[in-house]
Amino acid sequence: MTSTVAGQRGLFGEEAGAAAAAGPRDGASLKKGAGGAAADGPAEKGGDTAAHRLAAKQREISVSEFFTKNRHLLGFDNPRKALLTAIKEAVDNSLDACEEAGILPDVRVEILPTPRDDRFRVIVEDNGPGIVKQQLPHVFARLLYGSKFHVLKQQRGQQGIGISAAAMYGQLTTGKPLSVISRIGKKHPAWYVELKIDTAKNRPEVLREMETDWDKEHGTRIELELEAKVQKGKQSVDEYLLQTAIANPHVRLEYKDWDGQEQVFDRATKTLPPQPTQIQPHPYGVEVGMLGGMMKTTEAKKLAAFLKSDFSRVSPRVAEEICDLAKVSPDARLSGLEAEQIERIHQAMSQVKIMAPATDCIVPIGEAGLVAGMKKVLPAELFLAETRAPKIYRGNPFVVEVGVAWGGELPAEEPVRLVRFANRVPLLYQQGACVTTKSVITTDWRNYLLQQPKDALPVAPMAIVVHLASAWVPFTSEAKEAIAHYPEILKEIRLSLMEMGRKIATHIRKTRRAADEAKKRNYIDMFLPTVVAALHEILVLDPPTQEKAAKNLRDILEATRKQNV
Amino acid sequence: MTSTVAGQRGLFGEEAGAAAAAGPRDGASLKKGAGGAAADGPAEKGGDTAAHRLAAKQREISVSEFFTKNRHLLGFDNPRKALLTAIKEAVDNSLDACEEAGILPDVRVEILPTPRDDRFRVIVEDNGPGIVKQQLPHVFARLLYGSKFHVLKQQRGQQGIGISAAAMYGQLTTGKPLSVISRIGKKHPAWYVELKIDTAKNRPEVLREMETDWDKEHGTRIELELEAKVQKGKQSVDEYLLQTAIANPHVRLEYKDWDGQEQVFDRATKTLPPQPTQIQPHPYGVEVGMLGGMMKTTEAKKLAAFLKSDFSRVSPRVAEEICDLAKVSPDARLSGLEAEQIERIHQAMSQVKIMAPATDCIVPIGEAGLVAGMKKVLPAELFLAETRAPKIYRGNPFVVEVGVAWGGELPAEEPVRLVRFANRVPLLYQQGACVTTKSVITTDWRNYLLQQPKDALPVAPMAIVVHLASAWVPFTSEAKEAIAHYPEILKEIRLSLMEMGRKIATHIRKTRRAADEAKKRNYIDMFLPTVVAALHEILVLDPPTQEKAAKNLRDILEATRKQNV
Repeated sequence: MTSTVAGQRGLFGEEAGAAAAAGPRDGASLKKGAGGAAADGPAEKGGDTAAHRLAAKQREISVSEFFTKNRHLLGFDNPRKALLTAIKEAVDNSLDACEEAGILPDVRVEILPTPRDDRFRVIVEDNGPGIVKQQLPHVFARLLYGSKFHVLKQQRGQQGIGISAAAMYGQLTTGKPLSVISRIGKKHPAWYVELKIDTAKNRPEVLREMETDWDKEHGTRIELELEAKVQKGKQSVDEYLLQTAIANPHVRLEYKDWDGQEQVFDRATKTLPPQPTQIQPHPYGVEVGMLGGMMKTTEAKKLAAFLKSDFSRVSPRVAEEICDLAKVSPDARLSGLEAEQIERIHQAMSQVKIMAPATDCIVPIGEAGLVAGMKKVLPAELFLAETRAPKIYRGNPFVVEVGVAWGGELPAEEPVRLVRFANRVPLLYQQGACVTTKSVITTDWRNYLLQQPKDALPVAPMAIVVHLASAWVPFTSEAKEAIAHYPEILKEIRLSLMEMGRKIATHIRKTRRAADEAKKRNYIDMFLPTVVAALHEILVLDPPTQEKAAKNLRDILEATRKQNV
Repeated sequence: MTSTVAGQRGLFGEEAGAAAAAGPRDGASLKKGAGGAAADGPAEKGGDTAAHRLAAKQREISVSEFFTKNRHLLGFDNPRKALLTAIKEAVDNSLDACEEAGILPDVRVEILPTPRDDRFRVIVEDNGPGIVKQQLPHVFARLLYGSKFHVLKQQRGQQGIGISAAAMYGQLTTGKPLSVISRIGKKHPAWYVELKIDTAKNRPEVLREMETDWDKEHGTRIELELEAKVQKGKQSVDEYLLQTAIANPHVRLEYKDWDGQEQVFDRATKTLPPQPTQIQPHPYGVEVGMLGGMMKTTEAKKLAAFLKSDFSRVSPRVAEEICDLAKVSPDARLSGLEAEQIERIHQAMSQVKIMAPATDCIVPIGEAGLVAGMKKVLPAELFLAETRAPKIYRGNPFVVEVGVAWGGELPAEEPVRLVRFANRVPLLYQQGACVTTKSVITTDWRNYLLQQPKDALPVAPMAIVVHLASAWVPFTSEAKEAIAHYPEILKEIRLSLMEMGRKIATHIRKTRRAADEAKKRNYIDMFLPTVVAALHEILVLDPPTQEKAAKNLRDILEATRKQNV
């Protein structure tokens, strides 16, 4: 009864039948169809209705065409942002690859001027594991292709879009290919390729490929030219690298800017963070349609076996409970389940008590790491950090970490500075759209003795660092600039902010009290000699008595002051 | 020298070679690969490096999988918004199809409750041209498939994602298929299909299909069930339909809500707006990479012929000028051009003077239409509207229209109300991210006598309507909720707002002057009798002289008042 219209020939393939039904699809014949001259698609000969004319214009859109036209969705809105986005995507990939291969990352970023002042060359080079030569074209010149999308664990990249999008943007704005050198080990030669994307097909084009000499034993070096605008300051490459160093103390970054200025962010530790472990989806986060989909692709044949093998934290006992509650036999064959049964199973999955997901798929920065990072760059007097216990949204485990720097030389009359990270990657754009911002704004900081204008960040000598680490970070756009407003995430960040708020309030009270105390003590010191002198004039005391009286008087006054505190 | 890695077998196809290079890709073998157990992809037998292990995990990601995981990008963040988005996508499609077929649109929307209070059924039915049966599965159950993406003219839909995304969300949250009835003319039977999306492949699955009885001669009716939350108010279906009626006076909308309440928004005119005409890209908006791509897919063989046939507004003389300036022969064969020559041609294209693009690809609402729309719903005393001359961003023509309603019963102490449209579609979400909002905020309304807090909307008894009509609207996300910040668009909107501002200021001044005048006249009326009585007491005037004196005095005072105005 179920048939897949496009046929079964290739998994992602396209076969003749669907092509015919779909009307003309190559550029040339589209042009005719869309112009309205050729009213009939091949499958619709003799069609005479408006519907037939419309049908002739229908065609598939390649994902590269889509993102070329919508490149702002990927962070390539303008030349300034494009430069940062391209570097960010390359560095994220380098760090992910190094860590996955257990290598301490050494990454070098260069921005080189070109004869045209609206174009720059970007080089990003790492000491990672390298990429096998067959994969190079697909990894760098094909959108929606990668190793991370289907894996539930904390990674910087997750879509399989970023670096190919950078290549596509470079190609679009300069016409130049991306070049890559990669070497996978000292027994293997280094390999050089020049790549373009065929956007109509979303497939790589290899312009050149050859063995080459490279002094690195393993690693990858990409080079691309793009329309760009260089800048220093808040949303600059400098700032991105600095924040990356803060959240990744095990990383060494070298940076040469367009003026030839060199900077090094050296590593603070030689210990790699533990490797996150891949997990299965948790039953609480699976929607009924997803459950149905999983039942089709699993290798398990029977219900209980499927629940145990394809989900996180489903023990034999839990599987049995789910089946019982759903009134479906544990031995029921998946292929024979009715829609209604699947729905009952889905409901049962949300009702049975199941252990929270394993959290070794996430590796937070840690409270000590956060404090160390903040101390590096923020001239404050008090540093606080909290790493929360893991929680779940839509079945994805996540951990919220919040750091707060207070006082010192931080500006007292400005809105607090908010520094945002997702999976150790700094987020520099779209602060207004980010759940972290909403969390700070919707926390009532006046409860913690701070000033806060309506619907705004509090005004205080304070910086707030928020890190969301998750097996899947829900970004508001493919450009990965802001985290979407999931209520579970909002709640966790707010809880942590409130905890910080209480500590800040305690600190403020203590500081105020110390100041008051100092002030009162000051009054005693100021008036006591006068009082004693007056007593002496009235009573004519000898020096020891005078001293004793002064001491007693001070003790009494001090005791009173303490009672009044 | 150039080879496409994935081979040439099918335009969007996948062939065995690439599949092998890409490692395992079906669900089952992925699971092994990604789990780390099977370290070697088929093409990498005997590989021994970290790179080989990573290579085994690489695979293609289908666009449906991508958007299932990232459904918030499509406007399906939460049940409340999902309901609106699904209806919006269906209605947009209905209106586009009707207009393209020259039919006055009659659209009916129904929201039906279900036994579960977190699920609703949505029905959208139109009197459009219908869809041929071979296309139904592709149009409704396949992402990035449609007739509009490659066509440069004003349309509501533009991506080929929306309605299939609604089907996908329904399927994900309820497990239920989308059902469609469509009929393309009275000589053709109505056709019924039930569809699901195979997300791993991004291809439709047809669960049922059959002829059916339907009383409509032509039209389409879709029905789907989805997780949803119903609401009234600001971002509701009611509000969306109301605003749609304002921007589309030729449309008739019927709406039955979950309580069974019926509403009709009748059409204000029986005249369809003129049909927008498809255009070619304009030379000023084409980037060098796009130019290279077009040279590959065009049917033209030689440079000058290509420029004339594939671009808007390139006359034989303009083509010649471009070739001259680029120092490339007009008869140069496209296939033989060097990258450097293409770049020179690209630069020449931006330097030669070329007529602005034809603007019949855009059909604005018009000043009268905007005013009529505002009068329908806004209780103001003054209505202004401006339809600007067409401009270009990135080669895409666009028209900005701004309407302003002032005074009357509009609240004076609140920020102005901003109503946003793109290609006649109301935008209800993401106001903060929209270029229209930025335009209003960055206009200095204090120049026009209004109050305006820093970085905020002005506070005044005013509503501002902004409509962007374009052959390609650059939205900030696939959900089409906000317009991206292109400087050309920002500038046009601000220019129009300033024009409105000047008129508002004139109106305010006139109103104030009238008030002042009335006040001064009031003083004269109040004091004149007293002055005259005093004169009488001093001079003892007879009644006629007294009257004459009063008249003279009034004339003098009135003249003085007028001089002082």
